[in-house]
Amino acid sequence: MSVTTAALDPSVCAPLPVLGQDVTVPLVTGGEVVYAALDYAASAPALQRVWDDVAAYAPYYGSVHRGAGYLSQLSTDLFENSRRTVAEFLGCRAEDQVVFTRSTTDSLNLLAAALPADCQVFVYETEHHASLLPWRDARVTYLDAPRTPAQAVETLERALADRDPYGPALVCVTGASNVTGELWPVKELAAAAHAHGARIVLDAAQLAPHHPVDIAELDVDWVAFSGHKLYAPFGSGVLAGRADWLREAEPYLAGGGASRKVSRRADGGVDVDWHTTAARHEAGSPNVIGVYSIASACKALTEAGFDNLVAREQELVSRVREGLAEVPEVQVLSLFGDDAPRVGVISFVVRGWNSSHFAAALSAEYGIGVRDGLFCAHPLVRTLLGSDPQDPGECGAPEAEPGERSLNAIRVSFGAGTPDEHIDRFLRAVSELVRDGARWNYRTEDGRCVPDRGEAARTA
Amino acid sequence: MSVTTAALDPSVCAPLPVLGQDVTVPLVTGGEVVYAALDYAASAPALQRVWDDVAAYAPYYGSVHRGAGYLSQLSTDLFENSRRTVAEFLGCRAEDQVVFTRSTTDSLNLLAAALPADCQVFVYETEHHASLLPWRDARVTYLDAPRTPAQAVETLERALADRDPYGPALVCVTGASNVTGELWPVKELAAAAHAHGARIVLDAAQLAPHHPVDIAELDVDWVAFSGHKLYAPFGSGVLAGRADWLREAEPYLAGGGASRKVSRRADGGVDVDWHTTAARHEAGSPNVIGVYSIASACKALTEAGFDNLVAREQELVSRVREGLAEVPEVQVLSLFGDDAPRVGVISFVVRGWNSSHFAAALSAEYGIGVRDGLFCAHPLVRTLLGSDPQDPGECGAPEAEPGERSLNAIRVSFGAGTPDEHIDRFLRAVSELVRDGARWNYRTEDGRCVPDRGEAARTA
Repeated sequence: MSVTTAALDPSVCAPLPVLGQDVTVPLVTGGEVVYAALDYAASAPALQRVWDDVAAYAPYYGSVHRGAGYLSQLSTDLFENSRRTVAEFLGCRAEDQVVFTRSTTDSLNLLAAALPADCQVFVYETEHHASLLPWRDARVTYLDAPRTPAQAVETLERALADRDPYGPALVCVTGASNVTGELWPVKELAAAAHAHGARIVLDAAQLAPHHPVDIAELDVDWVAFSGHKLYAPFGSGVLAGRADWLREAEPYLAGGGASRKVSRRADGGVDVDWHTTAARHEAGSPNVIGVYSIASACKALTEAGFDNLVAREQELVSRVREGLAEVPEVQVLSLFGDDAPRVGVISFVVRGWNSSHFAAALSAEYGIGVRDGLFCAHPLVRTLLGSDPQDPGECGAPEAEPGERSLNAIRVSFGAGTPDEHIDRFLRAVSELVRDGARWNYRTEDGRCVPDRGEAARTA
Repeated sequence: MSVTTAALDPSVCAPLPVLGQDVTVPLVTGGEVVYAALDYAASAPALQRVWDDVAAYAPYYGSVHRGAGYLSQLSTDLFENSRRTVAEFLGCRAEDQVVFTRSTTDSLNLLAAALPADCQVFVYETEHHASLLPWRDARVTYLDAPRTPAQAVETLERALADRDPYGPALVCVTGASNVTGELWPVKELAAAAHAHGARIVLDAAQLAPHHPVDIAELDVDWVAFSGHKLYAPFGSGVLAGRADWLREAEPYLAGGGASRKVSRRADGGVDVDWHTTAARHEAGSPNVIGVYSIASACKALTEAGFDNLVAREQELVSRVREGLAEVPEVQVLSLFGDDAPRVGVISFVVRGWNSSHFAAALSAEYGIGVRDGLFCAHPLVRTLLGSDPQDPGECGAPEAEPGERSLNAIRVSFGAGTPDEHIDRFLRAVSELVRDGARWNYRTEDGRCVPDRGEAARTA
C-alpha cells in the first residue's frame, strides 16, 4: 500500500469541521486557549456532519427489526442501509458480511471466537493488544518485530512455511501502527497468507480513518475498525469480510435477535435455531445511533474526497516530522525507518524528560492533548525504546519523577479535523519546553501527572 | 416486590419530556399525526434531559484513561463518575462492581462467561432469550412456567433442593416480564437461592426503567439492565454486583484497557497481567457517551421522583387494562393473573386478527408504534397463547395472511415519556379496528405487514 502524493486540490484543503473545535481550556499559566486535540489515534472528535446526522435522526429513533410502528421501520431501514454504506466504504465483495460490533477490540474478539477448531494464528509482537491478545483458544505464533516491510513479509512467509499445512490458519496484521503510524505491507502479507492457505484479518483501526481501505483490492479476508477513531464516537465498530467462518461459528452473544426460533425440547432442554446472517453475532438491541454514525462518517469522508484528506494529512505528517527533527533531544520511534509511508500517528521520547511530565506540560501550558504511555502495544514500544521487551511496562500510571529517562513515550496524532494551528502550536511547544523547560512544577496525583498548584508551584 | 400506590404528587404527574414527542408521521388514510411511541419495552425514546446532557458533553468528548489532555481528563472523570452514579442508582454495596457493557444481553453473556467451573444454572423457560440462552458452558436446568409468584418460588426451591449441593449455582430471573409486564418475586427468589447456596442475577431490563431497583434491599448478587430501555439509547448497558466471580474470570474481551502489563516470554509466548477491577471486562475504548447517557438517565429518573413516575405509570397501566377489558375480542396475556402487579408492558391477541396485521393497522391508520411477534421469549409466548411450547415460532417475519388466528401477539408498552393522549388513541384504535375492521388492505412485503398501496387498496 502506498500513500498518495497527488497534488492537493486547494478547494478541499481545509480541515473538516469537527465537534469541539472551538472549545477552550484553561492554562495553568493563566488564560484560556482553544483545545488542540492531538490524540486522534485514541479517539477522534466527531465530525460535525456526523453529529448533525445523529441529532437529526435522534427524534426518529425507534426499536428496530420487529417494531410495527413508523419510526421502527424507519430505524430498521436506517440500520440496514448503514450496513450497505459501510460495505461500500470498504469495497466489500458481494458475499462479504458486515457485522456491527462495539469496537475493533470487539470485532477481533468476535473473529477469535469464530475460528475453526485447531486454527493456527500468526500475529506480530508489534500489534496493539486488541490484535495481539484475543486468540486465546488458538495456537498462536508470535512473530518477531520486523525492521522493514519486506522483512515483515519474509517473517510471515517463513512462519507459514513451517506450519501444519492442512489445518486452518489466520494471520492478523495492523494496517497502520498505532504507535509509529507506519503502514504495513497489507497486500503483500495477504498474498503470502493466501499462498500458504491461510486467511488474513486487517486491523484497520488506525488505517481506515486516514486512508481508503478496499477489502477486495487488498485481498484480505476481514477488516476490523472502530467508530470512535473514524470520527463517529458512539460506541460501534465493524467486522467485515468472509461469511463462512462467521456463519459456522457459535453466536458471539446468545440472546434475542441472534435466535430465529427457540423451543423447549421434550427432555426439558431448549432448542435454538440461530440466524446465519450478520444478526447471528449481533444479539441484543443494536446500537442504531452508533451504527448510523459510522455510516455517516463513511459518507462524509468519501464525499469530502478521501484522497484530498490523505494528501492534506501527509503534509501535516511531513511538517511534524520535520519540526521534530529540528529538536535534537527528540527521538521519533520508528520500526521501518525514515522513508516508510505513515499516517498521522507519531510517537517520540524527549531526552531528559519523563514522557508523562512532558505530556502534562503540553496540556497544562499549551492546551494540547496528546497521549503518553505504552499505547496498549507494550512489546512494540519496549522494542522501540530499546528496553527489554520482556520488561513489563504498566499502562495507566505515569512514572514517578519528572526529569528521569522515561520508559513511556509520547504520541501525537491527528487527522481530518486538525487545523494547521494545532500542529504549529505543538511544534512550538515541543521546542520551547525542550529549550526553556516547563514553566510549572508537576506531581503525580491519582495516577496522573498534574500541575502542582501549591505555593512553590511555579518554577523560577 | 410491590408497586407503590402512594398518592400522586400532582406537580410531577406530567410525562417527562422525551425526544420525538413532536414527531409526526403520515397516515395511510391521509394527513399526519404525532407519533405514539408505544414500544418502550423494546427501546424507549431518549429523555430530553439525557439528550441535552449528551449534546452538552459531545464537544468535550476525548479519549479516556491515558490521554494527557484536558478533555481526556474531563472525559475520564465523567466516565468514572458515571460508574458511581449508576452504583448509587442501584443501591450497590461497597464491594460491588459496576461493569459497563453494551446491553442486558451483553451483561448476561459476560456473567455467563464468568461462571466458575461446574456451575449449575437455573432459569425459567419464561425468560427473554437474553436470560434463557447465554449459559452455554453451564449445566442448565430450565424451570417450567409458574402460574403464580408463590409457585415460582416453590419451583425454584424444589429444583435447588435437588441440586448437587457442593458446587456453585446461579439463578437467573427477570424482574418484570418483557411479555406480560408482570413483576416476579425477586426478593423471595433471592432468599430461596441463597438458602440453597446459590447466587442470583436479576435481569432488570424491563424493571429498571419502570421501578426503583435496590440491589442490597433485594439481596440479589447481580443486576443487569440496558440504556436503550432506560431512556438512554446510546449503546451501553450495565452489569453490577459481586466482584469475586468477575475478578477471577478470564477477561470478557481481550485487548487494551483490560491488560495492565503485556510482555514477551523467553519461550516466544506472551504474558499478560490483567486488571482485576471492572476494567478487566471493558477492553477497548469505552463508549463514553453511552455510559454518560445512562448516568444522566439515572439522575433524571431519581430527580423526577421515581415513586411519582411509578404511580403515574400505574394509572396508565390500569387505564390500558380496563380499556382492553371492554373489548371482548381482546385477550390479554398473563402468567400470574389479573391481580399481579405489573409495569407498563402489556401483550394481547385479538380474536379473528393476525397480530401483525393488527399492529400494521395501528401504525398505518393511527400512527401508533407497537410490536408484534414473540418478543424474543418464544417458549413463554407459546405457553401463554396455548400453542405447543415446542412449536418453534419464527421471530422476524410476520405471518402470511391477515385474518387468520395469529401465532404471534401484540405488545403495547410505555413509560415516563408517555402522554395520556397516546393511551387514549391506542384504546380508541383497538376498539375501532375490532368494531369496524381496518380501513385499508395490507400485504406482506420484505417480511413486513404493510398497507397495500395498489388500486384495490382501500377496503369497501
